[in-house]
Amino acid sequence: MRLLMINPNMTDAMTGSMAQVARDLVGDAAEIVPLTATQGFPYISSRAEAQIAGAHVLEMIADHHESVDAVIIAAFGDPGLVAARDLFNLPVVGMAEAAILTAAMLGDRFSVVTFSPHMARWYTDCVRQTGLEARFTGVRCPKVAPASVDTVANDLRSDLIDLVEQATASDGADVVILGGAPLAGLAREISDDASGLLIDPIAAATAQAMSLVRLAPAYGRRVARPAAKPSKGLPAALATIIAGECP
Amino acid sequence: MRLLMINPNMTDAMTGSMAQVARDLVGDAAEIVPLTATQGFPYISSRAEAQIAGAHVLEMIADHHESVDAVIIAAFGDPGLVAARDLFNLPVVGMAEAAILTAAMLGDRFSVVTFSPHMARWYTDCVRQTGLEARFTGVRCPKVAPASVDTVANDLRSDLIDLVEQATASDGADVVILGGAPLAGLAREISDDASGLLIDPIAAATAQAMSLVRLAPAYGRRVARPAAKPSKGLPAALATIIAGECP
Amino acid sequence: MRLLMINPNMTDAMTGSMAQVARDLVGDAAEIVPLTATQGFPYISSRAEAQIAGAHVLEMIADHHESVDAVIIAAFGDPGLVAARDLFNLPVVGMAEAAILTAAMLGDRFSVVTFSPHMARWYTDCVRQTGLEARFTGVRCPKVAPASVDTVANDLRSDLIDLVEQATASDGADVVILGGAPLAGLAREISDDASGLLIDPIAAATAQAMSLVRLAPAYGRRVARPAAKPSKGLPAALATIIAGECP
Amino acid sequence: MRLLMINPNMTDAMTGSMAQVARDLVGDAAEIVPLTATQGFPYISSRAEAQIAGAHVLEMIADHHESVDAVIIAAFGDPGLVAARDLFNLPVVGMAEAAILTAAMLGDRFSVVTFSPHMARWYTDCVRQTGLEARFTGVRCPKVAPASVDTVANDLRSDLIDLVEQATASDGADVVILGGAPLAGLAREISDDASGLLIDPIAAATAQAMSLVRLAPAYGRRVARPAAKPSKGLPAALATIIAGECP
Amino acid sequence: MRLLMINPNMTDAMTGSMAQVARDLVGDAAEIVPLTATQGFPYISSRAEAQIAGAHVLEMIADHHESVDAVIIAAFGDPGLVAARDLFNLPVVGMAEAAILTAAMLGDRFSVVTFSPHMARWYTDCVRQTGLEARFTGVRCPKVAPASVDTVANDLRSDLIDLVEQATASDGADVVILGGAPLAGLAREISDDASGLLIDPIAAATAQAMSLVRLAPAYGRRVARPAAKPSKGLPAALATIIAGECP
Amino acid sequence: MRLLMINPNMTDAMTGSMAQVARDLVGDAAEIVPLTATQGFPYISSRAEAQIAGAHVLEMIADHHESVDAVIIAAFGDPGLVAARDLFNLPVVGMAEAAILTAAMLGDRFSVVTFSPHMARWYTDCVRQTGLEARFTGVRCPKVAPASVDTVANDLRSDLIDLVEQATASDGADVVILGGAPLAGLAREISDDASGLLIDPIAAATAQAMSLVRLAPAYGRRVARPAAKPSKGLPAALATIIAGECP
Repeated sequence: MRLLMINPNMTDAMTGSMAQVARDLVGDAAEIVPLTATQGFPYISSRAEAQIAGAHVLEMIADHHESVDAVIIAAFGDPGLVAARDLFNLPVVGMAEAAILTAAMLGDRFSVVTFSPHMARWYTDCVRQTGLEARFTGVRCPKVAPASVDTVANDLRSDLIDLVEQATASDGADVVILGGAPLAGLAREISDDASGLLIDPIAAATAQAMSLVRLAPAYGRRVARPAAKPSKGLPAALATIIAGECP
Repeated sequence: MRLLMINPNMTDAMTGSMAQVARDLVGDAAEIVPLTATQGFPYISSRAEAQIAGAHVLEMIADHHESVDAVIIAAFGDPGLVAARDLFNLPVVGMAEAAILTAAMLGDRFSVVTFSPHMARWYTDCVRQTGLEARFTGVRCPKVAPASVDTVANDLRSDLIDLVEQATASDGADVVILGGAPLAGLAREISDDASGLLIDPIAAATAQAMSLVRLAPAYGRRVARPAAKPSKGLPAALATIIAGECP
Repeated sequence: MRLLMINPNMTDAMTGSMAQVARDLVGDAAEIVPLTATQGFPYISSRAEAQIAGAHVLEMIADHHESVDAVIIAAFGDPGLVAARDLFNLPVVGMAEAAILTAAMLGDRFSVVTFSPHMARWYTDCVRQTGLEARFTGVRCPKVAPASVDTVANDLRSDLIDLVEQATASDGADVVILGGAPLAGLAREISDDASGLLIDPIAAATAQAMSLVRLAPAYGRRVARPAAKPSKGLPAALATIIAGECP
Repeated sequence: MRLLMINPNMTDAMTGSMAQVARDLVGDAAEIVPLTATQGFPYISSRAEAQIAGAHVLEMIADHHESVDAVIIAAFGDPGLVAARDLFNLPVVGMAEAAILTAAMLGDRFSVVTFSPHMARWYTDCVRQTGLEARFTGVRCPKVAPASVDTVANDLRSDLIDLVEQATASDGADVVILGGAPLAGLAREISDDASGLLIDPIAAATAQAMSLVRLAPAYGRRVARPAAKPSKGLPAALATIIAGECP
Repeated sequence: MRLLMINPNMTDAMTGSMAQVARDLVGDAAEIVPLTATQGFPYISSRAEAQIAGAHVLEMIADHHESVDAVIIAAFGDPGLVAARDLFNLPVVGMAEAAILTAAMLGDRFSVVTFSPHMARWYTDCVRQTGLEARFTGVRCPKVAPASVDTVANDLRSDLIDLVEQATASDGADVVILGGAPLAGLAREISDDASGLLIDPIAAATAQAMSLVRLAPAYGRRVARPAAKPSKGLPAALATIIAGECP
Repeated sequence: MRLLMINPNMTDAMTGSMAQVARDLVGDAAEIVPLTATQGFPYISSRAEAQIAGAHVLEMIADHHESVDAVIIAAFGDPGLVAARDLFNLPVVGMAEAAILTAAMLGDRFSVVTFSPHMARWYTDCVRQTGLEARFTGVRCPKVAPASVDTVANDLRSDLIDLVEQATASDGADVVILGGAPLAGLAREISDDASGLLIDPIAAATAQAMSLVRLAPAYGRRVARPAAKPSKGLPAALATIIAGECP
């Protein structure tokens, strides 16, 4: 099976490290097709940016959906996820949603640990979007944002281990999600040093995409698909999908 | 005061009828500045379309926010509302949200009556987004979608009155929101014939925009504004806002 | 339009300062008709007192409703609001409810900052009453009650600014409601010094009363009005309303 | 022990039948002290009426609390309950609350069956007030209000049995509360004919009052009691309590 | 009346102290029939243990239900409660549930204070199970588990009083449940020293069992009873009940 | 990887058909190790039965956990799931939970369609247990229970297709879970005939077990494991686990 891994952030290095985590997970069982946004932002960190980047995600899926079995949206706030799921006839998985729902199968309560206070609230909104807020013990993050997101997994390694400890010991989390694309791969590296069960969101999203492909839901009789509609100003592939000409 | 009324749907006639309702409400107290989307869809009716149209709404606000006191997003699902409120330093009001919160000040329980089953679920999502689902008695709509949205207020007039009756008598709604831009102005016309207290969402949004301007919240020390950020592929005015160059 | 502003507390100075805030907000667009309770308590601060004062509020409305377009109940716990809305055929606005619903149109999460720990829980109950508790970050207040409520806005000015800072920085509130009649007018005075968007509840209630009058809901076919009923021991005007003799 | 049973409705016959149910339940274990409101309404059926009657309930308790061990407020919407519990240093039980919490110990899901559509929503509000709405399957009632409440238990006997059947069979209720003072005693009479476990609210309230007296919570160090306060226009006994002169 | 008090923990001393509290409460009004588990664990403190012990509770009830009027499950997590209530035709009361629902009749918000951090989360789950989490202010407990549960009520007496103070003063609880069988009887002893209204769960459960017996719900037409079913490997008495041979 | 598939029902044919579905899904990627309960009930359909069967599930896992990578509890109510997850250091997946969380990644709203009214409420409880009730549109089932569960997938095939249609068209479900072990394999067979996206719970549970094994959470530093404890009357393998002698 082929899994399209879309990084809505315009940062190739991030795409590379996430693709590596995904490939390590799937082994020979799937092919990872990574794709980096060519419009938008280096690193999405607000809902305003997600509104814009999410629209671009739809364009990227429209360009590639016919040659893949599922789509992974590889940015923690899942920009464009709900819209893509409405529009396309294949499984679409978001990194945040997949991490959260996976956490719910490993323990009762889960936490998000991340590297910057800027996105703490957005992560909370992601949890609320799934409906699992009653099982969420909150976000733990450093008090100040790091100077650069690029090397944050290394720079803050021991701080993040401490935050995981607080999430489990003080907040009562069984499972801790290490949130944010720059932390891709970190869960595996620190799992012996950190308490609780750790989740790497890109790994969780990849595993869930494989699951959904294996389950092979039949999209032929899907309900609630938007009605076919003309549009103006959209890239051709996306406009065609929305026009209902080749679902 | 000047209120920017953005119609994210590309239909001028709809903008015209909504602007008329708004002008009747404000009288001399405010100037309505209507603006119709030049990209996107004739009439937004899915979350996929809202993802795309909402990004365009941000561009429209970026082009005009400096000359107005508040913004009204004049489409029922409030495309772009959350993002716009994050980004701009002036009140931004959504038609659905304003209608729902206004309903909560007129009675305990409220309903949405609309003209097509296609958007029933989306309206429910709008209510959930506000947090008031416990006071919501649900959507009432015809079983089949109308052939055209343009003349729906006239064509379905008596059906809609019946649906309002069901919402109040069977569902226990005190207040009924007549949802959807094509129904602009209808609440006033049928208020003697229909039971319950009726809300016209464009009127509610206009009244709320006036309220927020009168309250004059000071945006100078606003928190949770997205950090300044470079971008690629965005129209200049929006890119400038996001770059933090002239908030 | 004429707005009846009922202060259920028996303190004329408080009525005066609240009326001033209301008049500054409405300008020429409305006339504020202030009324101070002549029975009850100097300052309501418990639900037991609200039970009693709320009954008196109904009597005050019964005496004046025919000459006004809307009613503002100007005490933070909104004593008598639900009952008044059931009973009278005009918009009735509560200070707490209006502040909370207005906050929900300015940002995602809101807080209440007030001057005394005595009413912290009651404010929480007010939020729960609206249904918006999921967006509420809690009450921030001094640890001890002030000696006098009369001069509390001046005496505690810098403490309150600090509490607002905690509400936004630690609790994640976008909007802060300055709760309690003795703080009327303070939001405007400290808006340059305090973080976040501030709401003055009496200003919010006045703005919302104007909104509802502009929307002009037609009470003629209102549902869920209590059935006409005899009573004993009530003042004549209220007894007449309840007897259904002149709605 | 002595249990003060306050009927906030001004109808002596209702007080009598409720007192009989209570006496049958307590046997020799307690003395029932019935008291009928002398102000207010023959039968409270709206929140407006409850606002007024609840204030009178406080006066009635103030007059009698020193000679009893607990108070039962014997009207389904529990007028004055929250306020009384704030104010007085003895257990105060409401008919609706006691019935609902008792139902929660007999089964998972419960329903209310009552004799008139007029109070269906108010009963729902009572459930919401307790916090148990997730276990509530709703109200079942006749479509039209009966001509008289006095003989409703006999007149509607077979209709009520049918409604109980619908509540258990269609709605999935394990337990059915027969709501409303006019139905006092009916649960016992129809328990062989109706499905599910039936609850008579006045019996439940009486049993709970006995429970709380047996548990003998020590009110000496109770928290959250309202601060002592002057008042104007209140009957002497209540004013004294509120002034903190003899708690 | 006879009340079967099952201690699912295999510790006779605990049964003894709980029976004493129960007997002090009932006086001559009921007979307490204590029963200690002969299989399982000295003291249940996890949901895994509750799964096993709860199955044994069903066996114990099956052996004795015909000679009693109600059953009390006397361990805080209520092992087997839901299952027992499904299966047997008499009231079954759990210590945690009864304490929580009783707390809800004494005040608005309640807390649990207990002696060990090991069960803090489980107590939270108990509250969630009832549906009353919105009124729950959380668990307060020492940071480390005590060496022995046997003498914990004495050893930690002053610590527990401090925790009760924190629950009322910091968390805003009106009512405090002293959770865990080893604290049986403590509420009465410390009620003058500790703030708030205290609840002893075994006393609450006993009082509620008496209440339910007095209310005498008629089990003859109970709904949702499991269908009769063959089984293998169960003790004879329980197998007979499940086979529907002598309900 | 090896996946232990425990059927808590004592029916070998059911185990066989579920193992077949699981094997078809995993192909060469995993080995399915099926195990049928030797105690308990032919088909679990109440929470009383789940209490007993769940305890037996723990024994079955204790006997086999060392030779497998994950455990699937293959009965819809997930008997023993929470307890097993507490106790064992490997992923444990429940059929209901896995189906529900998978549904949440395929669409917004989901339904359960099953073959008998007897378990409708229990399925609702399963959803509530996950926390996703806000996205649940309810259970659809035939009005009467079938004579035999063995052939129900064939016997009721067209009825079940109709129920799926109602779940999507009337209730607004995007995804429909075909609930109950006797329906194993049906989703695949009817996916062209039935509307919506269908989920076979045993397939979903198998896919999720594979996901969790691939994610390889490190159990070495897991928190909230029950403390080691002596026991009496338990099978040796389970007693050893609980005694903490060989986690």
